[in-house]
Parts: sequence; structure tokens; C-alpha cells
Amino acid sequence: MTTVTVWNEYRHEREGGAASEVYPDGIHATIAEFLEDRGFDTRTATLDDPEHGLTEAVLDDTDVLTWWGHEAHGEVQDEIVERVRERVLSGMGLLVLHSGHFSKIFKRLMGTTCDLKWRNEGERERLWTVEPGHPIAEGVGESVEVPETEMYGERFDVPAPETLVFNSWFEGGEVFRSGCCYRRGAGRIFYFRPGHETYPIYHQPEIQKIIANAVSWAEPIESSTPSFGHSPNPPQEG
Amino acid sequence: MTTVTVWNEYRHEREGGAASEVYPDGIHATIAEFLEDRGFDTRTATLDDPEHGLTEAVLDDTDVLTWWGHEAHGEVQDEIVERVRERVLSGMGLLVLHSGHFSKIFKRLMGTTCDLKWRNEGERERLWTVEPGHPIAEGVGESVEVPETEMYGERFDVPAPETLVFNSWFEGGEVFRSGCCYRRGAGRIFYFRPGHETYPIYHQPEIQKIIANAVSWAEPIESSTPSFGHSPNPPQEG
Amino acid sequence: MTTVTVWNEYRHEREGGAASEVYPDGIHATIAEFLEDRGFDTRTATLDDPEHGLTEAVLDDTDVLTWWGHEAHGEVQDEIVERVRERVLSGMGLLVLHSGHFSKIFKRLMGTTCDLKWRNEGERERLWTVEPGHPIAEGVGESVEVPETEMYGERFDVPAPETLVFNSWFEGGEVFRSGCCYRRGAGRIFYFRPGHETYPIYHQPEIQKIIANAVSWAEPIESSTPSFGHSPNPPQEG
Amino acid sequence: MTTVTVWNEYRHEREGGAASEVYPDGIHATIAEFLEDRGFDTRTATLDDPEHGLTEAVLDDTDVLTWWGHEAHGEVQDEIVERVRERVLSGMGLLVLHSGHFSKIFKRLMGTTCDLKWRNEGERERLWTVEPGHPIAEGVGESVEVPETEMYGERFDVPAPETLVFNSWFEGGEVFRSGCCYRRGAGRIFYFRPGHETYPIYHQPEIQKIIANAVSWAEPIESSTPSFGHSPNPPQEG
Repeated sequence: MTTVTVWNEYRHEREGGAASEVYPDGIHATIAEFLEDRGFDTRTATLDDPEHGLTEAVLDDTDVLTWWGHEAHGEVQDEIVERVRERVLSGMGLLVLHSGHFSKIFKRLMGTTCDLKWRNEGERERLWTVEPGHPIAEGVGESVEVPETEMYGERFDVPAPETLVFNSWFEGGEVFRSGCCYRRGAGRIFYFRPGHETYPIYHQPEIQKIIANAVSWAEPIESSTPSFGHSPNPPQEG
Repeated sequence: MTTVTVWNEYRHEREGGAASEVYPDGIHATIAEFLEDRGFDTRTATLDDPEHGLTEAVLDDTDVLTWWGHEAHGEVQDEIVERVRERVLSGMGLLVLHSGHFSKIFKRLMGTTCDLKWRNEGERERLWTVEPGHPIAEGVGESVEVPETEMYGERFDVPAPETLVFNSWFEGGEVFRSGCCYRRGAGRIFYFRPGHETYPIYHQPEIQKIIANAVSWAEPIESSTPSFGHSPNPPQEG
Repeated sequence: MTTVTVWNEYRHEREGGAASEVYPDGIHATIAEFLEDRGFDTRTATLDDPEHGLTEAVLDDTDVLTWWGHEAHGEVQDEIVERVRERVLSGMGLLVLHSGHFSKIFKRLMGTTCDLKWRNEGERERLWTVEPGHPIAEGVGESVEVPETEMYGERFDVPAPETLVFNSWFEGGEVFRSGCCYRRGAGRIFYFRPGHETYPIYHQPEIQKIIANAVSWAEPIESSTPSFGHSPNPPQEG
Repeated sequence: MTTVTVWNEYRHEREGGAASEVYPDGIHATIAEFLEDRGFDTRTATLDDPEHGLTEAVLDDTDVLTWWGHEAHGEVQDEIVERVRERVLSGMGLLVLHSGHFSKIFKRLMGTTCDLKWRNEGERERLWTVEPGHPIAEGVGESVEVPETEMYGERFDVPAPETLVFNSWFEGGEVFRSGCCYRRGAGRIFYFRPGHETYPIYHQPEIQKIIANAVSWAEPIESSTPSFGHSPNPPQEG
């Protein structure tokens, strides 16, 4: 069974206000619950846990890690970021959600600024499926409507995705590459734009379906570990 | 100097109505003129010319071919399509414009249906630059506004572009991959969505700039012609 | 269960000589057998069957089609090629094996000549895994050695693969992109170079493993079928 | 005129031995000279210069930076690496040569380990052109032979290149993706494998031609600088 660690900054939801109403137990609780319901073995981890909840033991037992952060990216320790990065390069899947575009781990793996435009006025978003045959689009319609959201607009400063699965339209006039697949090392990474701490987007079934699909897609495979470094003898004479 | 052959179906503009007012001498005349103004050596060719104006002699002297067609794709002879295809594979650049998505030559080179959604109600389009460092985006702003146009919406059934340069937003709720780069054989292909027979889009300077940039980008280079077929002796012992 | 139709030209093996010794019941029998052993539901079809064995009923019940042909590509009826192409665009997986690079169906889907260099002198090939985290490389080592084979060399005139999984080395001095992934429409296509009618390459377990992995990778997903054509009302007002 | 800064670690060549014979004035002197000969405006910079020769003033006047390093990657200051990275993301071209695969700047921009296999036994390399229509292959033959070199073998742990231009064959049995194009931010990056401190590879005209082509390809274009961050008013109402 695929094991998923759902990581959340978990600050907004404890500060009162809209976030604590929409996600009273934290965004991680919501995500973990709908993934459990779809047959994944999940655990959660948050910023304020020791080692941010991402100990070597936890990562040893993680097939796919989902990442949500926003206001406290800078508090994530560099050592843990590097630990997670090494796991991804060794095959662990990584889902980066919404404002996680500015997380240290995503920026480190992409090599770019990962910057974008934003505007938080509750606009309508329409997420269009541009690759209907992709596993992350399985069972998803031609488009998914998010009634109210924060806008993210291009230019999104990331490397061109290896596969672009979703493309978003926003009421105010912007577009955004909302579902971006990458491979780094032996690991797969999916950036997924929808979601926010004060809109009930992670309660929306179509969004849950996409995230669950992405977890399945990002599962590690049993690959050979390449050997690196000095390769002394011409192998064909071996 | 780069030589460009501007091909046009040239039917709508001779049928009276809006097209003949917006492009009285044909879309090809407008495109050829703005390319001449930007330093290209241009000629035009149309469907009703002998061999559609695309004789071997013309193609021998063409670096980049631009293609606009709409209501008479079926009248383009298969033999000429194949002739153009061979030229593209040998290095000639090809720009496919707007409704040219359904041309025989584009469908033949892509291998897919090249189908899409459309709605002609004069909606506003905003073309966003998603790759600001790409030569086709040189001197183009963050976004280009087309005040009134026909909408084209995803799913656009083409192979994923090797580079996506522009992404369009439409007033009515759709998005579209509007500037798509491909390489086929030694030739480069750019599909560019904006443009229509009854809207003055090819009179818009930003659109002209993009088309001129794309012509420069698609110019053939002096490449070696690969040898194919039987390669009898292990070359290193040669 | 995934249903696989294993298609074979089945001419070499009935002409006597080495092919009939290495694959006495045809290449298709060998491929179908090792796929059955790995849990797929397989059937076979050959060129000389009515409709080449690829009736609408057969294709209705095919998740993934594998294709081997060589000396009789020209005898495959265009109507059947088009029928297969439509299925691929609708989601059916397609594996194109070795000399199938010159099949009508592969050339039609790629849009290019699909030409290459070749030399049949029983050279050694070493297939290197360049994407160890890809599902088609699951359980495959860093490299697979094929003791004797026909050489295929670059330039391979295909569109750049969306993912390059394997890269081959040949004793005589050439390299070849041997494992190429494409998506066309909703369907996935894998071109896999190793294999030949007179070398026992399809009896080699590592090669069988890769082909089985590719079948799993190419399985259709339950995707929404995009709507195309006129989209009359701005959908957000719907 | 394109300005090129040729950066070199410049240690091996001052340590005596083969490197000081093959590149008596340093690898940078050789590269700068052949680029000057081909019409570029060049300067050089080395590790032991103040700020490694990469001051803000120098970078202000650099269109393309070439990078060669090997034994002292760790001595490059992180601050300078970050300075270079910001320039690349803003549009400066970057050519990473041979053992530069392990430079801080390349690893930082790629996000992966950039590891590989190697063996230094003076084997023959053959560099095959896999994209003959690419500007970096202009005027280059089907293949380039390097008589004696250090082998680099796959798995090369980098993100899949956006375009793979060259693919290397080595006498001892390995292959390598030797010419890899990337875009990061507004900048273009080319990794080029051939070259070494003790083999006269940078004296070889075909190799010089490829490096000169890559400099031209990587030149910045005059792009709009995207605006990032808060985008307060729905722009279409503006």
C-alpha cells in the first residue's frame, strides 16, 4: 500500500479567522482524510513537530510526500530541506500544493525563483485538462470549476514542465500552468496550483480526485540505483 | 536575406463581407507587407494559383512558409501537401496560423486530429507570454490584448509542444496553448493562434512582431544532411 | 485485466531460414507467451488474417497493441492503419518494436520519415537506462546487454521523444535512442528498438521485462473525452 | 557584438604536467582565442581573481558565460554562485563544459546531483548529432570523432534536457547525453561534455565550432521582464 506523508505548515489554521473555520484541524487533516478514504496509508507532519515531523524514520516509510506551506517557508530548516531533496532524487514522490511554490524544497529542486503573480479577491478559476490521457487526469472532466479562489498568473518562473496536465483560467484575465509534472533524479514531482487556506478547495471532490491521482502517479518504482563515479574497467571486457 | 513565402487560401476575402473589408487584398498581402517592412524578402502564393503557387522552384527559394487556410483545406492537393512536408523535414520553417490548425499539412506533420473548441462572438483574448526568454517573445510584452476575436479552447489535440511560448485567456472562460514550437526532421514549426479573416488582428503591431520573430526563429540552418540506410562498415575501423 | 493484441507481419518466420528456427511459431507467439506469463490477457493478429486481424471488434477489446513488421509494411491497408490510428488517439496504447519504425502506423503518428542507419553484422548492443525512475525501467538494471544484434544508428528521424528511457551503444561505433515515449491524442506510444527476426532477443528475460513494463505504462486510463467543435455559449454563464 | 566571459578554474594548468603542456596559458586562453577568432568579444576570468573575476561590473557586460572547473568546485564562493545564478535567470547565457557538470552553479540550476560515471583511459569518443536542424549543430557533421578522451557514462543525473543535440559513444561501452539544452528563467544553458585538461580537445576545430554555435544560441534576447507579486486590479478592467 502506498504510504503518504501529508506535510503542512499549520500556522494559518491556528491563528483563528477564516482558515481555522475552513480547516479546523489543519489542511493536513483534510488532505490525509480524503487520501485515506481513497485507499492510501497516510500520516501527517507539521512545521512545529520536531524535525518538522520529517525524521529519517518517517521518510524511510514515505512513498509520496505532499507539501503545503505559505507564511513560514523561511522557518523550514535547510538540513531538513536537503534531507527531503535527497529522498526525492532517490525516488520519493513529491506533491507541491498551491503556495508551496515558494517553499525551499520546490525552489531548490527547480533551480529557479518559482515566482508568479497573485491576487486574492475570490475570483472564479476554471481548470482545463490539456492532457486528457494522463493518469493525473483520470476520471476528471474537461474542466473543473473552483468558484472562489486566489488568482495565480503567468509568468510562472519554473522550468517548463515535462508534462503540462492542467491550465487555469481566472475571471480577472490571467492564465496559469496549474498542473506541472517533473522528474528529478529517480523521483517525480507534481506542482498543483488549486488550494488555499481560506477557501474550501481541498473539500471539493474533483480537486481531491486530482490529488489522489497525482499521489498514485508519483509513487516510486523499484528501479535499479545507478552506480556513479569511477568505473575502472571497460565493462564489455569484464 | 531570409525568403518567406506567405501562403493564403484567399477565398473569404473575395466573397465580399467583412473579410474583404478587413483584408481587401487578402490576408497574404497584409502579412507579406508587414514582413517586408521588417526586412524579409517575401512572396505570396494562394490556393487558386497553379500548384497552389507552391512549385518546386518556389519552394527551392523559400526559407520559411507561412500558412493560412480555413474553408477549403480539402482542396489542397495531397501531392502538394507531401511536397511541402518533405521541405519542412529537410529544414524549411513553417508557420501555421489560426484556422490553419486544420490544414492538411499541419495535421500530417502532427499525426493527431488537431481539433479544438471554437466560438465566434468577438470575445476579448489576452495572450500571455509564458517563456519571456524565447526568441519568439523578443520585444513582446508580458501580455498582448486582442480586443475582439474568435475563441479557440482546449483540449487542443496536438502533441505537447516542445516549447510553449504563449498561453491565451478568453473572456468567455477558456484557455488555449496559442504559441507552440515543434521540430520535425530538420525543420521548425510554429503554430500561432491569433488571427481571423474578419477581425483586424494581422493589422495589430504586437501580432506582427510575434509573426516576424517566429519567421526568424524558423529559418533553416546549414546543417549536415544525415545519411540513412545501410551503413556497411563499422565506421571506426574505416 | 489488461488486454494486449500482439500484431506481427509473420512472413520471415514462414520463409525458412534463421527466423523460422528462432521463432518457429512466429515472433507474435513468443511475445504473447511472455506477456501471458506476466499476467496480461493476450491475443495475436497477423498481416495475412482478414483485416490483418485488426477488426473493430478486436480493437474494441484491446488496451494495448504491439506492432512488429519489416518486409511487408506496404501491404498493410491504409484503411486499417487509419483505424488503428484513431484508436491510439482515443487512448489505446501502442508499442512499436524494432523494424516497426518504418511501419505505416508509426510514420503516420510521428509525421516524420522515421528513417535511421542500420547494419546487420551481429554486433553487441548495450542498452543503457537513462531514466531509472521511469515505470518502463522498473526492475531493469543499469544496462542490458544484447550479445548479437542488428545495429540501428542515429540520426533517428523522429520527433524528440517526450521521455527518453533507454539509449543504446553498439560495438561498431553508433548510438541510438532506443526507448522513446510519446503521447498522441489520449494514447501512449513506446518505440523500443531491440528485437529482430533472426536473433533470439525476444527470448531474453530483460527485454521481455521491458516490453511488459511498457504495456503496463501504455494502458489507457479512464479519461473524459474532450468535446470539440462549436461551443456556443460562454460556459461560465451556463 | 556578443560579449563572452570565459571562466576557468585555472589550477591544473599551473601545476605542471600534461595540462600545462596542452593548455600552457590555461583552458580559458584557448577558448577565448577561438571565440575571438569567430567574432565574439571575449574576456576571461578565473577562480583566483578577486570575486573569481565575476564582479557585478563584469557580469553587467556579459551576454554569455562559459564555465570550466574541476578540482576546486568547492572553492567557488556561494555568494558568487548566487550572483551568477540570478544573472542566468535574468537572461545571461551559460555554457557548462565537461567537468563543470559538478560545479556549484550547474548543480544549483539543475536541482539534481549531476553525477555520472567516468574513466580516464584515453578512449575514443564519437559525438553523434541527434538534432541536425538545431542551431548548435550548424555546420557540424553527422558525427565528430574525439581520438582520446575521458569517458563519461550514463546515468547522468540531470533533468531531461529540453533538447538533446548530441549523444556520445565511447570505445569502452558507454553512452552519454553530451549536448543538453535547458532554459531556466529567461536564460539558456548548454551543457557540453567534450573537453578535458590533458587532452587537446579544445584545440579541435569541430569542438570549437560547436562551442561557438552554443554561445550564439545562448545569447540573451530583449525580453520583457515579467512583473511578479501582487497584481491588485483585474487587469482587463484597467
